Amino acid sequence: MSQNDDYNQKLKSLVRSLPDVPEPGVVFRDITTLLKDAEGFGKTVDEMVNFYPKEEIDKVAAIDARGFILGGAIAHRLSTGFIPLRKQGKLPWHTIGRDYSLEYGGDRLEIHTDSVAKGERVLLVDDLLATGGTATAAIQLLEETGAKITGCCFVINLPNLGGSELIRRLGHKVKTVIEFE
Amino acid sequence: MSQNDDYNQKLKSLVRSLPDVPEPGVVFRDITTLLKDAEGFGKTVDEMVNFYPKEEIDKVAAIDARGFILGGAIAHRLSTGFIPLRKQGKLPWHTIGRDYSLEYGGDRLEIHTDSVAKGERVLLVDDLLATGGTATAAIQLLEETGAKITGCCFVINLPNLGGSELIRRLGHKVKTVIEFE
Repeated sequence: MSQNDDYNQKLKSLVRSLPDVPEPGVVFRDITTLLKDAEGFGKTVDEMVNFYPKEEIDKVAAIDARGFILGGAIAHRLSTGFIPLRKQGKLPWHTIGRDYSLEYGGDRLEIHTDSVAKGERVLLVDDLLATGGTATAAIQLLEETGAKITGCCFVINLPNLGGSELIRRLGHKVKTVIEFE
Repeated sequence: MSQNDDYNQKLKSLVRSLPDVPEPGVVFRDITTLLKDAEGFGKTVDEMVNFYPKEEIDKVAAIDARGFILGGAIAHRLSTGFIPLRKQGKLPWHTIGRDYSLEYGGDRLEIHTDSVAKGERVLLVDDLLATGGTATAAIQLLEETGAKITGCCFVINLPNLGGSELIRRLGHKVKTVIEFE
């Protein structure tokens, strides 16, 4: 086992697993226990940042709301600007939006139309990748505003729900720190 | 004018002011134009971080959702853990909550009861300080869970709405980067 695998096992052990949340048979992966751990949070951000050469990213986009915690830290570390992808009705200026379906229900994601200049290379960040519905909507919105997606980066991957496969099939690179079967 | 004042004027000019949003007679201060500017975002985080000696902060707490963008970056820079204060129903574990009133309406803020160990020194971060209703609820929740508030830090202060005065009257230190009358 490499040092990196050791780290990832440690990070995985900091995630709190809540059985039957939000519904029977489902396990909710709660990252607040990872975030509140100084070393855990630091190493998670370090690992996400190290996936990407600094000079290949113009902006970091993140998804409302937990994605903002990681995305803000990563944008700062990469010395880039930050773009919020927000739930419906939260952005005050001109937006475009997309409906998407979630594991439980659906929602709508919006972006300011002036978020990127044409051709800017954007890294998409969120905390968790499940079915990929939210991430796909985010990718489409970023591309509609003129972005080139450099990569998609998540703390947790639930590969059995198909999101990582879906995003790769759309032609994008996916990096994740922790996996749960 | 010091170099610092020059910076702050530059940062202020990156905030987009939207008259009559969300209602007639009100000016909405939109920080997305500041966040997407690499230098603007970087300098804003630098300035917030430089208010505090690294060894005096155990954890950074931030308010759902824009506060997470700054709070995540600041926690990472200070090498601390991160605590999210969230809107009602968003946290999956045991919580305590507080209702608060806003400039327009009201809402409820919640925190996980295991967010801090007793006596941990916490820096509270949010994007904007108006009436101080949200920040006061956040301070009370943090103190109820055992935190000692080291300081409260915001990108934008609207001093005429009384929030900075209110928080200082409660005995806490307030730091802000940009002011709008």
